[in-house]
Amino acid sequence: MSNAAILTLSCPDRPGIVARVSTYLFEAGANILEAHQFDDTETGRFFMRVVFEAVAEGSSVGLIRDGFAAIAEHFAMDWTIRAKSEKRKVMLLVSKSDHCLADILYRWRSGDIVMDIAAIASNHPRETYQHLDFDGIPFHHLPVTKATKLEQEAAVWALVKESGAELVVLARYMQVLSDGLAAKLVGRCINIHHSFLPGFKGAKPYHQAHERGVKLIGATAHYVTSDLDEGPIIEQDVERISHQDSAEDLVAKGRDIERRVLARAIAAHLEDRVLLNGRKTVVFRQ
Amino acid sequence: MSNAAILTLSCPDRPGIVARVSTYLFEAGANILEAHQFDDTETGRFFMRVVFEAVAEGSSVGLIRDGFAAIAEHFAMDWTIRAKSEKRKVMLLVSKSDHCLADILYRWRSGDIVMDIAAIASNHPRETYQHLDFDGIPFHHLPVTKATKLEQEAAVWALVKESGAELVVLARYMQVLSDGLAAKLVGRCINIHHSFLPGFKGAKPYHQAHERGVKLIGATAHYVTSDLDEGPIIEQDVERISHQDSAEDLVAKGRDIERRVLARAIAAHLEDRVLLNGRKTVVFRQ
Amino acid sequence: MSNAAILTLSCPDRPGIVARVSTYLFEAGANILEAHQFDDTETGRFFMRVVFEAVAEGSSVGLIRDGFAAIAEHFAMDWTIRAKSEKRKVMLLVSKSDHCLADILYRWRSGDIVMDIAAIASNHPRETYQHLDFDGIPFHHLPVTKATKLEQEAAVWALVKESGAELVVLARYMQVLSDGLAAKLVGRCINIHHSFLPGFKGAKPYHQAHERGVKLIGATAHYVTSDLDEGPIIEQDVERISHQDSAEDLVAKGRDIERRVLARAIAAHLEDRVLLNGRKTVVFRQ
Amino acid sequence: MSNAAILTLSCPDRPGIVARVSTYLFEAGANILEAHQFDDTETGRFFMRVVFEAVAEGSSVGLIRDGFAAIAEHFAMDWTIRAKSEKRKVMLLVSKSDHCLADILYRWRSGDIVMDIAAIASNHPRETYQHLDFDGIPFHHLPVTKATKLEQEAAVWALVKESGAELVVLARYMQVLSDGLAAKLVGRCINIHHSFLPGFKGAKPYHQAHERGVKLIGATAHYVTSDLDEGPIIEQDVERISHQDSAEDLVAKGRDIERRVLARAIAAHLEDRVLLNGRKTVVFRQ
Repeated sequence: MSNAAILTLSCPDRPGIVARVSTYLFEAGANILEAHQFDDTETGRFFMRVVFEAVAEGSSVGLIRDGFAAIAEHFAMDWTIRAKSEKRKVMLLVSKSDHCLADILYRWRSGDIVMDIAAIASNHPRETYQHLDFDGIPFHHLPVTKATKLEQEAAVWALVKESGAELVVLARYMQVLSDGLAAKLVGRCINIHHSFLPGFKGAKPYHQAHERGVKLIGATAHYVTSDLDEGPIIEQDVERISHQDSAEDLVAKGRDIERRVLARAIAAHLEDRVLLNGRKTVVFRQ
Repeated sequence: MSNAAILTLSCPDRPGIVARVSTYLFEAGANILEAHQFDDTETGRFFMRVVFEAVAEGSSVGLIRDGFAAIAEHFAMDWTIRAKSEKRKVMLLVSKSDHCLADILYRWRSGDIVMDIAAIASNHPRETYQHLDFDGIPFHHLPVTKATKLEQEAAVWALVKESGAELVVLARYMQVLSDGLAAKLVGRCINIHHSFLPGFKGAKPYHQAHERGVKLIGATAHYVTSDLDEGPIIEQDVERISHQDSAEDLVAKGRDIERRVLARAIAAHLEDRVLLNGRKTVVFRQ
Repeated sequence: MSNAAILTLSCPDRPGIVARVSTYLFEAGANILEAHQFDDTETGRFFMRVVFEAVAEGSSVGLIRDGFAAIAEHFAMDWTIRAKSEKRKVMLLVSKSDHCLADILYRWRSGDIVMDIAAIASNHPRETYQHLDFDGIPFHHLPVTKATKLEQEAAVWALVKESGAELVVLARYMQVLSDGLAAKLVGRCINIHHSFLPGFKGAKPYHQAHERGVKLIGATAHYVTSDLDEGPIIEQDVERISHQDSAEDLVAKGRDIERRVLARAIAAHLEDRVLLNGRKTVVFRQ
Repeated sequence: MSNAAILTLSCPDRPGIVARVSTYLFEAGANILEAHQFDDTETGRFFMRVVFEAVAEGSSVGLIRDGFAAIAEHFAMDWTIRAKSEKRKVMLLVSKSDHCLADILYRWRSGDIVMDIAAIASNHPRETYQHLDFDGIPFHHLPVTKATKLEQEAAVWALVKESGAELVVLARYMQVLSDGLAAKLVGRCINIHHSFLPGFKGAKPYHQAHERGVKLIGATAHYVTSDLDEGPIIEQDVERISHQDSAEDLVAKGRDIERRVLARAIAAHLEDRVLLNGRKTVVFRQ
């Protein structure tokens, strides 16, 4: 499958898009392996994801990408074409809790999530994760105080650029990004919030959940926006709890939900399954 | 199991409660079939539910109940002892949507929920439910307008008293109870809210959920209090949705969750599995 | 959406199918609303479902169907094109347990499942379902004994033909269909088996599950084949149980799973979401 | 909670057990924090788990244990009393796949599962797990061939004894234990089988599941007996799959289910929540 690639696009809906795209791919020597589409009748926007393989003699992903530009312009598409085998660069930001970090590292190593972890940064020192094998991934200690937040965020941003990271993952990074940094990372920074949003926004959500006496707790992976905990939701999940669970029990149970939900969101993003639709997402599931 | 009964109690925690209760039951000729307890270390309150059978010659549920009063007084218990075979009287309040009503009637008829439905009341006329066989259960049409809300609630309350209903179920009854009526029904009126509380309180929760782009929707059964959608939660559940679901699709999918959650809450209440713990509940599951 | 229709097809995979189909639809005046496809790389078979709307002046579902025949022949497709608004005729076969029947009737009446229930037949008399309002649907009592099985199945088959039923639902029909009848109904007869297949085939699966001490029970909806409980699976679901549950508790809990799983399978079939793939199914989910 | 302890017992059911046990604990200076019981009416056997705290002056877990022996003898109980703070010794057996091993190590380090991992043994060398920090836990390479199985199992057994392991976990150990070794480890050896038993016993269950076209896959943690894949089930869980999943996708998705199910089973066993009931288990959940 060395010539496989993923096309994603969104544009105003009108008749003929699928015909135009699929005919182009056929004529360009590609075979369609998988395709999903969604027509948002409320907003009139059309979304599509196609996995294809350049099979014909002389055909290649690069040539197909070059030729697609004219179609994209015609339909006013937001679009990407990416080789499926390409390992995308990811930067992980983390604080003291390392359950998401450990899980992401495991899935990266096992090949469950295909990516190139270009950097790990934390406001805590390397020793915090002494039991985790970073396997040569560069680690950056970027401590932060109220007084140095501006400089620290500048350092984070410099690292994003320098590492070439296409995706930034807040793997339980307990610092709220400033509006400025959030704006630079729009659509490519995923956070895991430890509640089933929109319930229990803000601080200590498990304690809020315990206080309220809910019977299920959850976690939410979403794109970061300047509006805290209000970004487009990618994935959510829940688990049953009982009156016997203390707030600390919820924190422990929540770790399992958080790492599962975050891993699914990262994988979906990297496989180009997530398309932004205003403040919502379209997620083409496997 | 004709002599089986259920004891529930809650009281300030102190050593010896279980010993005292179980020894009393043993000496009174009862065999314990099932027991659950919970010690809320935050509030210092103790909760217990015991299913027992009066097995000894001359022993009976009535005698055991009489003798228990002294123990209950000693430990300052809130308590009940009820014959397990007793069919408790329930009143159903309903509006136009009949999916919960139809489900409750089915479960009542099949014996899944053991109860005596003493009355069904609605602000819509009998014809609204023409396809449902009420099987002799008295139906009361209690229309309501802003101007007549006071009188209508008086009629509802009169019906509760007259029918002897121990439990009032708001089976998608789309009228907010006044504080006065809510106060009279505290701990014995269950509502089904069509969202995963505390998310999406108030009106049109499925439309709110669609607007926000959540990936799971839910329903919540809770005791009614004067604080709308803030009463103690008994049961919740969720189901996965996708970007393809319109607000109307969520309403349709939600019907399944609502009827399932409400049925579980009613069954748990009637089996004396739900004990109030401030604004939370203790639910001793099977 | 009065001109909306659903196209399903399966054929040997080769490049250009999507391009050919979507270009044809575009040129025939249709707008694609939704499309799913699946390429089974193991068998080399391609599956597709398209929802389209005939939007152009003079375009119609009938004309589009007529024109599609040539494409279908070219690619050796199994295919259907059906108006989305068309209510398909369904026949329900039932025995003593009526939980699935009651649920299907409710979903039919509420519009959750769009269909025309052409007939209900049972080996038990009408009185068995006296609390259910059949609302004018013809009921047929077709008693059966070992000696009369041949004649009874002939009567069932006559009823299928006479009623014009495209789908036969065994809604907890406790008679095993003969190979002969199963063969006539291949791909259009859905059974609900009360276990998570392939576990606990055959009789009394809840008792088998109780005996084995499993921690979850399930139900399976599948197409009927001559090989009992081995037909292509359409939908499955499970629920958690505990050591406290007796075999009878499992039967009661199972009723909820069965009706949910069967309803989903019927809806998926009627919306042309289920395509046969040898002894497996392709289910294009919403 | 330094004086907290857990009592588990099972015995033939008869009136007065709870009274006798709870009165003894009260008189011995203990306060009951949590209690569960189960009366298996089919087998006439009674099961109980009590968490208590030795609160009175001069009271201790040791003294309470000593005094309990007479009661246990009277009722013919199988019983244990164990300090809650005691870290029980566990030995892990593993083969090439390390997803369960990595997960167990993480939960051990984070304190989610409280235990003392006394040894890790594998039929593969240490390098197989080079990215995992064993943190000083002794590792033993015990290679095995058909010809050396007897000797290898003798070495495993020697290690169990030598390490003092109370629990042996087959964390995806791909060797079938001989009847002899299984017999020595009865009730204290947990295996994770990568299917939802009793479906797909034996080898390559995900490939069997793919072949059959099921819509959910699962995993099962059970005690090992000489009857392969037939031991008492402790925990099971499932996840939804689709026609798009290849057998390899199922293997990948299954890893998540396996590690979750095995972790829950280990935790439940170590917290004395699992009691054997013939070929079934009683699991007192939190």
